[in-house]
Amino acid sequence: MTSFREFRGGEAWGNEAWKAMCRVRESQPLVQCITNFVSMDIMANTLLAAGASPAMVHAVEEITEFTALSNALCINIGTLSPNWIFSMKVAATRANELNKPWVLDPVGVGATRFRTEKCIELIHLKPTVIRGNASEIMAVVGASTGSTKGVDSTQASTDALEAAKELARLAQCVVVVSGAVDLVTDGKRVLGVSNGVALLQRITATGCAVTSLIAAFLSVNPGRPLEAAAFALALFGIAAEIGNERANGPASLRVNMLDALHSLDEASVTSRIRIAQI
Amino acid sequence: MTSFREFRGGEAWGNEAWKAMCRVRESQPLVQCITNFVSMDIMANTLLAAGASPAMVHAVEEITEFTALSNALCINIGTLSPNWIFSMKVAATRANELNKPWVLDPVGVGATRFRTEKCIELIHLKPTVIRGNASEIMAVVGASTGSTKGVDSTQASTDALEAAKELARLAQCVVVVSGAVDLVTDGKRVLGVSNGVALLQRITATGCAVTSLIAAFLSVNPGRPLEAAAFALALFGIAAEIGNERANGPASLRVNMLDALHSLDEASVTSRIRIAQI
Amino acid sequence: MTSFREFRGGEAWGNEAWKAMCRVRESQPLVQCITNFVSMDIMANTLLAAGASPAMVHAVEEITEFTALSNALCINIGTLSPNWIFSMKVAATRANELNKPWVLDPVGVGATRFRTEKCIELIHLKPTVIRGNASEIMAVVGASTGSTKGVDSTQASTDALEAAKELARLAQCVVVVSGAVDLVTDGKRVLGVSNGVALLQRITATGCAVTSLIAAFLSVNPGRPLEAAAFALALFGIAAEIGNERANGPASLRVNMLDALHSLDEASVTSRIRIAQI
Repeated sequence: MTSFREFRGGEAWGNEAWKAMCRVRESQPLVQCITNFVSMDIMANTLLAAGASPAMVHAVEEITEFTALSNALCINIGTLSPNWIFSMKVAATRANELNKPWVLDPVGVGATRFRTEKCIELIHLKPTVIRGNASEIMAVVGASTGSTKGVDSTQASTDALEAAKELARLAQCVVVVSGAVDLVTDGKRVLGVSNGVALLQRITATGCAVTSLIAAFLSVNPGRPLEAAAFALALFGIAAEIGNERANGPASLRVNMLDALHSLDEASVTSRIRIAQI
Repeated sequence: MTSFREFRGGEAWGNEAWKAMCRVRESQPLVQCITNFVSMDIMANTLLAAGASPAMVHAVEEITEFTALSNALCINIGTLSPNWIFSMKVAATRANELNKPWVLDPVGVGATRFRTEKCIELIHLKPTVIRGNASEIMAVVGASTGSTKGVDSTQASTDALEAAKELARLAQCVVVVSGAVDLVTDGKRVLGVSNGVALLQRITATGCAVTSLIAAFLSVNPGRPLEAAAFALALFGIAAEIGNERANGPASLRVNMLDALHSLDEASVTSRIRIAQI
Repeated sequence: MTSFREFRGGEAWGNEAWKAMCRVRESQPLVQCITNFVSMDIMANTLLAAGASPAMVHAVEEITEFTALSNALCINIGTLSPNWIFSMKVAATRANELNKPWVLDPVGVGATRFRTEKCIELIHLKPTVIRGNASEIMAVVGASTGSTKGVDSTQASTDALEAAKELARLAQCVVVVSGAVDLVTDGKRVLGVSNGVALLQRITATGCAVTSLIAAFLSVNPGRPLEAAAFALALFGIAAEIGNERANGPASLRVNMLDALHSLDEASVTSRIRIAQI
């Protein structure tokens, strides 16, 4: 297993992440989200707090036009159904045609054959970034390669690194494995991000929300999906850390985190960021 | 362009708005909402905080009966799809048959042909009030009249006043243009409402929520849609102003605003209200 | 009408409820929810705050497999539509086959014929627990028995006790009538739970959320649905009481309640619990 260098607030990463944050706030990218019903409120509010502009649009009758207006696309299969999957495919295809970044959140992949099959079909449409937890990423790799290796939902994210690299190479995209340390890889390079707090796991759809934030950051960092994903993860995590300082539990953490994301400043970002090349 | 008189807390408006608020709390009007998925939580909680009773019911199999039980109807096309649009039409038609007020929130109209077309079809079903931002109202007028005038999403609400008046006359309804100053017109008279805080724009679906509140106020102010809409806008804005005094960002503003709406009292309403005839 | 004994913090009930809470936290039961769109955020966050694991999965293509993975199932007809009802039936049938508990929340039953009919069809699939307010429970009994007795939404929960007992016997399940005092009956025994605060009624979907919590508690109290339901009601109510101490209105109550549920401790539970045999 790869060993991790000690994480430190690298000044360079902090400066770059802060610049990316400023670009999101200035350009207010329109992020089209075709996402699960549970996540819609926190996803829209996360994008708004970060300065982006969310739009939940799923009707196939308007996707071709709408995706053309968007700066990035976020697809999340949490509460999937056949007609929504169809819309997701139309949107992903359109995003590719127009060279717009799109991200895939393979929620719960591996739990059922239908979910796994649809997820693999979406991956064939070449997402820019795939973000999941260790179980999900390993399930995707298992399904893609025919591996019968069991999926353990308690799998540490570091254990999934090899799977993530394999998926990144197979799908020719960037893969993020969320965990205590988030791993971001394009199949060759690996960045680790260790911002965030454990209590986020007790708020629904925080993973979905950070995926949508990755979409926003991709749109302002063209050609650098590895770094864009790491910046989104780090800034969301920093907002959670700041929010957690005054939180009494998961619900107040959610409120405080969104407030902190909205008012994130350069000093907080550069002093707190924990990104490292692994 | 119409010039604005200075806004002051008109005692008369304050008294009337407060009486309308009391009528909502006493009669607890049942507001049927066929709305976008993103808005459902904050819309239901806004109506509850104001003393109304929300019901999200969209199945065409039960709409004819349910709309008959409701005191007002709120239709919002944010996450539209063909079958939901069909339900919206059935409900709007039923509301008209039974002489119940209904409001239309044309979210994102102009972004796609499908959305614009469906919006125009809904407007043909004679809403009591249409509420949108400047871009949306101008897009509706453009589509209705064949005007090719471009839509600019940064259009100030005052610039849309002429469009709003035209739409109000064409559709024989009251039109609200939300902005720093909300404009309310029936095509002849114009009221301006300048309560509220800019940070509301960083919370998803606050516009949707205020549209549903207009529906509630219509039900207790029969025959006075212009004033009912202005009261709902002003009271929601006052709650936001009070909530903002202790807020640290958009998420705590949302919490505090709903709390403030629930406990709004006469003194706050009469001292803070900013409605003026323009 | 049955008279109520004075409620006191029975040490025995407190100890048992606390043990049940610990079992939820330890085993983190997977609760599949097929629920209305309005409730999804607060339901998922309630389950997470209590230590359970929520999953909103409604596609019929994956239900057979997914329900097999779940520890309990929560079905809520709030925003019903024909295809969701079909999924609910497939899931309930599957839960029965596998001997997994499932709960039904008959939101708004009685309001329309479609809703009532679908609710009765679901009850024929033998839920473990049905939870509704007095109006809903009386509507179900009226529809089941052909009674033409009118339904009054202001019906006190105690007035619905006889209806609840009748429904429990007819449907061979546990019935909960929510109100100032929640009543829980299997048709013979009756437990009353008087934890909670009135302001909960001004937050959308708190009833839906507590129904999902009952599902979680059923999964860790096999064979004791009466007690499991009472514990879930009491603990949710205690969290609301604690949360209300620092609340300024419904929105901050919601935040504080979820925080309190997450950090609920033995002393609070045993000192505050108000369950009594009636």
